[in-house]
Amino acid sequence: MVIRSDIATAAARIAGYIRHTPLLCLAGAELGLDFGVTLKLELLQHAGSFKPRGAFNRLLSAKLPAVGVIAASGGNHGAAVAYAARALGATAEIFVPTLTPPAKVARIAHYGACVMQIGETYAEALAASRDRQSKTGALEVHAYDHRDVLAGQGTVGREFEHDAPNLTHVLVATGGGGLLGGIAAWYAGSVKVISVEPEGCPSLHDALKAGRPVEAPVGGLAADSLGARQVGDLMFPVAQAHVADAVLVPDEAIAAAQRMIWDRIRLVAEPGGATALAALLCGAFTPPAGARVGVLVCGANTDPTKVAEP
Amino acid sequence: MVIRSDIATAAARIAGYIRHTPLLCLAGAELGLDFGVTLKLELLQHAGSFKPRGAFNRLLSAKLPAVGVIAASGGNHGAAVAYAARALGATAEIFVPTLTPPAKVARIAHYGACVMQIGETYAEALAASRDRQSKTGALEVHAYDHRDVLAGQGTVGREFEHDAPNLTHVLVATGGGGLLGGIAAWYAGSVKVISVEPEGCPSLHDALKAGRPVEAPVGGLAADSLGARQVGDLMFPVAQAHVADAVLVPDEAIAAAQRMIWDRIRLVAEPGGATALAALLCGAFTPPAGARVGVLVCGANTDPTKVAEP
Repeated sequence: MVIRSDIATAAARIAGYIRHTPLLCLAGAELGLDFGVTLKLELLQHAGSFKPRGAFNRLLSAKLPAVGVIAASGGNHGAAVAYAARALGATAEIFVPTLTPPAKVARIAHYGACVMQIGETYAEALAASRDRQSKTGALEVHAYDHRDVLAGQGTVGREFEHDAPNLTHVLVATGGGGLLGGIAAWYAGSVKVISVEPEGCPSLHDALKAGRPVEAPVGGLAADSLGARQVGDLMFPVAQAHVADAVLVPDEAIAAAQRMIWDRIRLVAEPGGATALAALLCGAFTPPAGARVGVLVCGANTDPTKVAEP
Repeated sequence: MVIRSDIATAAARIAGYIRHTPLLCLAGAELGLDFGVTLKLELLQHAGSFKPRGAFNRLLSAKLPAVGVIAASGGNHGAAVAYAARALGATAEIFVPTLTPPAKVARIAHYGACVMQIGETYAEALAASRDRQSKTGALEVHAYDHRDVLAGQGTVGREFEHDAPNLTHVLVATGGGGLLGGIAAWYAGSVKVISVEPEGCPSLHDALKAGRPVEAPVGGLAADSLGARQVGDLMFPVAQAHVADAVLVPDEAIAAAQRMIWDRIRLVAEPGGATALAALLCGAFTPPAGARVGVLVCGANTDPTKVAEP
């Protein structure tokens, strides 16, 4: 299991490559809530999401073969791997499914990676990338189910605790669970970590119910970033031990959260980036009286015309 | 002249109404520069720009007449006055010129103010608002040339110094000069404050050359936020005493800075909000070796389709 010391090691390893993202403290009234919220603006990370943390930790921990690296992704991980590979002088092949939005495909290509769009969802793109990897010998950078990736994503939790040490609850969106697992491993129960998933992508919700990672539906507004079909084997015991609750939100709540984030804060969050806040806004999770609530806003890679009514 | 103690008083007065906006530290390489830059993300302020600081300080310092408040604005100040008036239970009439973009007109109306669009530029909207004020007796909230407004805007400088105490240079966009004057009054020479204006709106540049506020052209991409025609009488002696340089940037540099801010940081800055950074990116201002440079990103009220290639 990934533990705090792995995350502290990762933080030192990736420090020169990663932005320490800022917080923004909002009064409850600003969001129509009874309690204040501390947002961590991880959507301002390089490549527009938290994903470079895990990607850099993986690449910096491995010996990079001359043939380069390979990854499958709904888009954000692919952009992060492309960004990290370019920074480290390696080539990258990124496999994305057809549901990956044009904004993400363009971003991956912009960083100089070779993009293959194949399969309907992440799981199929992953299968195709593994076929390819078996022929080339490129270094696989898994989107979530690898120790180094989990530890890298956990550095978000480390920063959040450092900058906002008094939180009692932290809400995090879950897809394959790399981000949630890393953050839950960091806090290790000292803060109540709440997983938020779209109703259309309930991978952790279903896994916790079944007592093991199981295949879940993949659909809806945030499927490109949270549609992993099944949570990682490595994150699952962490979630069982250290995740306090796993709630679901409807797509309408995600879209409303995106609009609220633009209207009140002038930030462009993608659906997966707005999902954690959506749980508070729609009441899927209500913290107890006196709670001090943190929310991770974790991705911005979307066409802003879709969220921002000027 | 507005001095530090006025700004400290303003900060205490408006604290409950204003966001303490975060910083984001970027390495030089992220922007293609030889030196790092500390951005203050004041575009995440309420109503999408720094303007509520001055508006709240003005409204909270005055006795509000039953007829409410009145202001002329290129848009951001109007949105801030509308926002502040609503928060304090007052009505507002806002006069904007025809060059004010639809995104700003909509934002003012969204806060429940009555919007009058009249005249080609801010100066003509101001004249119309003064006509109207003489009939109604509403409280005028000047966009920049009032002590309380200047002191309110100066609180940006106070926060910037508190959170980034080691800066040697701070770049600020100038229109009527309320923001620049407030910040320069706060630093009072302890940091080199650099004014940045579009070539199409050189109000401070021309005033410093003439030795007094003079009428300047109003045109180009950022005219809605930086097109004041003439800097304020109150800010001018502050600028003479405490502004180290006043540079001009072409519109193409502003547009390039907007694209860079979206591409690298996933923030939507309006033209006036990107103008200060533009001076570094296009070389209009080059800090000396060893400088520690801060840049204020001061407004986000624009149609994101105009800046954001996804």
